[in-house]
Order: sequence, then structure tokens, then C-alpha cells
Amino acid sequence: MRVSQLVAASGVPLATIKYYLREGLLMPGISTSATQSTYGDEHVERLALIKALAGAGLPIDRIRTVLRLIEYPEASLFQTLGRAIAELPPYLDDADAEDYPLAKAALEKLGQVYDPRFVAVAQLDRALRAAEEVGIPMTDERLEVYGRHVRGIADYDLSLMPDTVEAAVEYSVIGTAVYEPVITALRRLAHQDIASALERPAT
Amino acid sequence: MRVSQLVAASGVPLATIKYYLREGLLMPGISTSATQSTYGDEHVERLALIKALAGAGLPIDRIRTVLRLIEYPEASLFQTLGRAIAELPPYLDDADAEDYPLAKAALEKLGQVYDPRFVAVAQLDRALRAAEEVGIPMTDERLEVYGRHVRGIADYDLSLMPDTVEAAVEYSVIGTAVYEPVITALRRLAHQDIASALERPAT
Repeated sequence: MRVSQLVAASGVPLATIKYYLREGLLMPGISTSATQSTYGDEHVERLALIKALAGAGLPIDRIRTVLRLIEYPEASLFQTLGRAIAELPPYLDDADAEDYPLAKAALEKLGQVYDPRFVAVAQLDRALRAAEEVGIPMTDERLEVYGRHVRGIADYDLSLMPDTVEAAVEYSVIGTAVYEPVITALRRLAHQDIASALERPAT
Repeated sequence: MRVSQLVAASGVPLATIKYYLREGLLMPGISTSATQSTYGDEHVERLALIKALAGAGLPIDRIRTVLRLIEYPEASLFQTLGRAIAELPPYLDDADAEDYPLAKAALEKLGQVYDPRFVAVAQLDRALRAAEEVGIPMTDERLEVYGRHVRGIADYDLSLMPDTVEAAVEYSVIGTAVYEPVITALRRLAHQDIASALERPAT
């Protein structure tokens, strides 16, 4: 297809497509003349992926890292997914790069394997510290309940993970970003539903 | 205690305490002279609450709304909690104030009672639309799994809700804000743990 058709098929404006081509995020088409190239389905798919990553809040250099990991995955899928998901927000400054005592204690209680350099360890530590500071610290009981249910969700997520590394990285990064707000909104709505039931007079 | 002791007890700087007094977020102390007032434990507690709300990302006018709901709760706890939690981020512009078809369909499938004006309905709708756009739309199966586990977490949260309205609003708003990042970090770490197990050679 011609670039005008690529614009129509992808919903991405021409100026943005040119920018992605310049930045190397989108692979060049096949030149058919000095000024024209032809594009295929792989360009439409790549643009959808870039759009999804940008929509998840990733700046351009982090999108580039994720795309590179899809093209040149590391030796293990575990490593590749860890590195790709580390490109998602929130972005923590390394200022408090201690050894994350609260997160490590929680992960040990849950019996989980983790890479201590994985950003989510720092995220968890910071969130647990905030909970402590506001007077609702994590307890063993809450950790057990949360850990069990979060694992139920994660087991389901992983059960649908595609077979190829390329598709697996895409599914994991996009799925992580897109379903976090779904889960937090569902929790707020479950609170509301349960509170309404508590209030209803018993019959 | 004197204001200097309130600074020490709360960890909030004097200039910030004066600002909160001017803005009416902190109730005045009892005047002991033309220039001095004395403060009590209720001031230390109020400052801890303001700090927690500010830490959760609430701007000053939203903190004021939450404090007012604690002092003058609505007729029902359900309404009061709904209004208080609506002050938490994310803040959506009302531009797309349609009727949230994806969220409503999901909530009906889950059989939940909800207030359609509750911000979490708009959040859920937006998140479900994003999932659809990136090619990982919500399915009935995923909704069932997520809904069940999120409810397990929410049931636990509500089981610890304090009895008084004041404490309940505080617990709900702070607990919602503080534990959302814990849950999303735990999910990322559960993914990593499960991926590592998938990769380990079977023995």
C-alpha cells in the first residue's frame, strides 16, 4: 500500500508516520521510485503497537527499547519480559536506590522468585512505605489475601500468553499497562457495591 | 502544645502549618495570648491526614472536600464514601461524559450495584476502551476471573473498615490511594515469578 493508505489503515497522521520513520521506530517501506515507497501489513501492526505504547504513557526512547527487545530478545523470556515491563510507568528516580527492605520481606513471605533490579520491587517498596506512613501498614494477613488474589489474576494473564517471544513481549507490556487501571477501577467499584450491601437493611 | 511542638510532633514545617490554618484545612488552636495558641492531639492527627491526602496526589481544594465530608458526612455512608473517593486521582475531563457503555455492561455482568456518576465508572470505561483499542479486549472469562479476585481483595478491605463515619472515610480514601500501587506492583511481580517458573526446566 502507499503511505496515504497506511495513514488510513493505521489512523496515524502522515507527519507522525514520517517522524517514526526518521526515529527508526517504523521500518522503511520498499522504495518504488525516488519519492515513493510501498508498505505492508507489518507496518500497520507496528504502528498499532507504537500507538498502544505511546497511549500507555511511554516516551519515545522507551518505546524504542521495547521494540528493540521484541526484535532482539535476550537469552531468556524471563529477562526479556522483565526488561520490557521496566519501561512502563511509573518512573522512579534512583535517588532512593537502597535495598528495598519492605518489598523484599513481603516477597519472601509470599515465596516468590524475583529479580531485585526489577522496577516493580522499588515500586512495591515505595508503596508499602507510604502505607506505613499513613497508618495502614501492610500486615501478614492482608499480604496473604492480596497475594493470593493477585496471583489468581496473574495466573490467568499468563495462561493466555502467546508462544512466540515477539507476541509474548507485546502481550505482556501492553496487557500490564492496559489492565492495571481496569483492576484499580474494579476495586473501587467493588468497594462501592459492598458498602451499599452493608447499608441495605437486612430483610 | 505550642506550635513549635506541633511542628516537631507532625513533621510538617511551620510555614505549611500556617498555610493550612489560613486555608481552613487545620482548625485553629486555642488562643493563649495575642500571638500564641495551644494545639492538641487532634491537630497532630489532622496534619497526618492532610499529609497522607497530599501524598496521594490530591490538590488543596480536593483535600478540603474530603475533610468537609469527614466533618459533615452525607446521609448515607455509601454516598459519603463515593463522594470522598471521587476526589482521588486519576482526574478525567468530562469531555467524554457519555454513558459509559463498556463499564455498564461489565458491571451488569458482575451483578454489582453502582452509582453511574461515580468517577470509577468513567475510569473503568476508559480503561476497557483502551484494552479494546490495543487488541486485548476484555472477555467474559477475564472479567469473571478479575471480578472474582478483585472482590476477594475488596471484601478484605471492607472487613477492616472502622465503625465511625469519620474513621471510615479516612480509611477508605487513604486505603484506596495507598494500596492501588501495592496491588499493581504485586501483579507485575507475580507475572515475573510465574514466568520464571515456566522457564525453569521441569525436573
